[in-house]
Amino acid sequence: MKALNEWRITQMRVTPIAFRDPPLLNAVGIHEPYALRSIVELETNDGLVGIAETYGDEGMLKALETARELIEGFSPFDLNGMDERVKHGVKATKSAGFEMNLAPGSHGAKNAAKVMAAFEGAMLDLIGQRLGAPVCDVLGGAVRDSVPYSAYLFFKYAEHIEKPYAPDAWGEGISPEQIVAQARRMRELYGFGSIKLKGGVFDPAHEVACMAALAKAFPGVPLRLDPNANWTLETSIKHAPALNSLLEYYEDPTPTLDGMNELAKHTTLPLATNMVVTSFEELKQSVRYPGRGPVQVVLSDHHYWGGLRATQTLARICDTFGLGVSMHSNSHLAPSLIAMTHLAAAVPNLSYACDTHYPWQEEEVAAEGRVKFVNGSVTVPRTPGLGVTLDREALRTLNEQYKSCGIRTRNDTAEMKKYDPSFTGKSPRY
Amino acid sequence: MKALNEWRITQMRVTPIAFRDPPLLNAVGIHEPYALRSIVELETNDGLVGIAETYGDEGMLKALETARELIEGFSPFDLNGMDERVKHGVKATKSAGFEMNLAPGSHGAKNAAKVMAAFEGAMLDLIGQRLGAPVCDVLGGAVRDSVPYSAYLFFKYAEHIEKPYAPDAWGEGISPEQIVAQARRMRELYGFGSIKLKGGVFDPAHEVACMAALAKAFPGVPLRLDPNANWTLETSIKHAPALNSLLEYYEDPTPTLDGMNELAKHTTLPLATNMVVTSFEELKQSVRYPGRGPVQVVLSDHHYWGGLRATQTLARICDTFGLGVSMHSNSHLAPSLIAMTHLAAAVPNLSYACDTHYPWQEEEVAAEGRVKFVNGSVTVPRTPGLGVTLDREALRTLNEQYKSCGIRTRNDTAEMKKYDPSFTGKSPRY
Ligand SMILES: [Mg+2]
Ligand SMILES: [Mg+2]
Repeated sequence: MKALNEWRITQMRVTPIAFRDPPLLNAVGIHEPYALRSIVELETNDGLVGIAETYGDEGMLKALETARELIEGFSPFDLNGMDERVKHGVKATKSAGFEMNLAPGSHGAKNAAKVMAAFEGAMLDLIGQRLGAPVCDVLGGAVRDSVPYSAYLFFKYAEHIEKPYAPDAWGEGISPEQIVAQARRMRELYGFGSIKLKGGVFDPAHEVACMAALAKAFPGVPLRLDPNANWTLETSIKHAPALNSLLEYYEDPTPTLDGMNELAKHTTLPLATNMVVTSFEELKQSVRYPGRGPVQVVLSDHHYWGGLRATQTLARICDTFGLGVSMHSNSHLAPSLIAMTHLAAAVPNLSYACDTHYPWQEEEVAAEGRVKFVNGSVTVPRTPGLGVTLDREALRTLNEQYKSCGIRTRNDTAEMKKYDPSFTGKSPRY
Repeated sequence: MKALNEWRITQMRVTPIAFRDPPLLNAVGIHEPYALRSIVELETNDGLVGIAETYGDEGMLKALETARELIEGFSPFDLNGMDERVKHGVKATKSAGFEMNLAPGSHGAKNAAKVMAAFEGAMLDLIGQRLGAPVCDVLGGAVRDSVPYSAYLFFKYAEHIEKPYAPDAWGEGISPEQIVAQARRMRELYGFGSIKLKGGVFDPAHEVACMAALAKAFPGVPLRLDPNANWTLETSIKHAPALNSLLEYYEDPTPTLDGMNELAKHTTLPLATNMVVTSFEELKQSVRYPGRGPVQVVLSDHHYWGGLRATQTLARICDTFGLGVSMHSNSHLAPSLIAMTHLAAAVPNLSYACDTHYPWQEEEVAAEGRVKFVNGSVTVPRTPGLGVTLDREALRTLNEQYKSCGIRTRNDTAEMKKYDPSFTGKSPRY
């Protein structure tokens, strides 16, 4: 092993991957047949390799490439210095591709935070490996042995329009009965103790009816609805009374801090967000509202908040300002899910089960195989570093799939036009 | 070495110490002949010893004792869990002794944060030793190789009234000429690039005249004045125009957030504080003021903010809200000064040279001897852990001095009454 003072990152490797993703509906359209991610590997001069999973769209791949000189040659311990270099060295871009408001990770404005998160994740993996300690210990230690996740339901079609592969096992999910069946299957397979429905897809009355059906089918199970800002303020206020008795929180029904602030006066529910508070700057604006304010629960996401440590800071700020904390998710594999698990273990004030898309994925890059859930929770690994190693063969396969699938920037709206040429993705729609 | 999963803190030792302190004047009175601190040692089941320096007053010693069961038997990595246990297990007390508003570290209300800081400091020392990395690396790495401190001037008498030992080498410091001479000597000995005067002692016009004399003697050197809230709002406003051209910041001239907020409208200077923002709760209140707000620079102090990591969080919050960051200090020795140095190295947005009382101390508990300053800065140690080891003989001597000096709770007001029986310590006095 290199002496600690001489320990350096010698090479960054970025491998874009694509994996099968079901035809899940959301406010801006429908998931394409393949979701993109990338695997960032940092190799050191003593042969250790730290990994992180992040976005795989073209803008992110470019941002990582421009940041190569900011990380190669530096120490894995140089996290604070890396923060500074990346903050100044990685520029925001007007996203070349489709920028989805419902997925802040797609925003070119967040390039620096996204790059830093990818670097930091792999650096923490390296530090942990070197120390012989799990990443959660590098983050100050786990306050819980396992991290609870929620069942993440989607309205969905039975099959992708272009039928690129065999249909998934979940079938169609549109009616309240189908949504209840989806929840039942997911709870049986994973044991989740709370349920979220991705809304903003159909008429709000239908979505509220789905929540009522879930409440009836699973009495006592905490429920959430996320219309992804696809409801006007008026619509959000109109449905608030019915939802008050159904939900544990009301997630991003309507756009803008001002909109959410007004809505907060008309509901007893906490308002949760991963859309109006997605940066420290927006957090500042949010907590400066007088009274209850626009947001009561911040759905953090280390992939675009600047990393695991920045998200710990976010959680501490939330604690200071009396806000709840949970976690947002995109389609992802083990390196991302396990990083979230280490982080959540090291956040004392995690107040709600975290979101994860993981049950919707079938493929994996981890040599350890698919992540296991017990009673809806993931056990915090106690092995050194992240606790995820790459299955090189699987990585190669998913990279080939990336090359062949033709998708380079996620665009759920364009995909939806294949089903409905009149679809515009205009928001708020209801 | 114990396997990491079996690594435990087996014993806490707390050694109160007293060291000589000059007759330095402040808003509430005068320093007693001995300053109290304590050295906290945490020993592990593999024989490592981590150390931290903290307050030495009776209230703090009691708080540490009640917290013994919260740390013995736990892992040095268990920082987040320790945070939670101490937050819930260490109660605030109405300080039994004298509680100085100018020294938040004396507040019984801060017991949990103070105990956590002491525990965390020693735990980080242990983690660093075990990893072979300096504490700054455990905090995410140093963004600077050395940390700048300021010359901390005091009005002072030549000798303690009871003459417990030979007079110090600094002589009397009352007139502008004497204050300039004190600054000159301190800059010659230590190389400090900025100068702070502890005010709130004499008529404000005299203190402003001292600042003017310093500005004339040291053109271009940044200056600060700290009346420790001993000026009314009216007095603070009255002297603001003269100070605008003399200072880099105006520190705690007047009490309360409301007072500082009003003053902020009458000065172009940043207002700095270690009195009205001393906790995350007060920080929240402060940033919620509309407009410029009551505080522009937070003078952090890990000893009462809950530790090095909590202070990093504080700095990040300051960054979010556009506030500057520097550091407050009390009379202290190497373990405290070096911990500050590691922390400051790991805070990218440290915007001003830190305060330190260190030049006023002559004794030391560190086997490495007295800390060296080069051009007013302390080099960040690169040795594993804190980089300070205890000189057992010196520790014993300073503990004997603690036992014999008779002081158990600092009381600058009672001390001042020995010089001036009519002194009340009433504040604001001017
Ligand atoms: Mg959401
Ligand atoms: Mg002060």
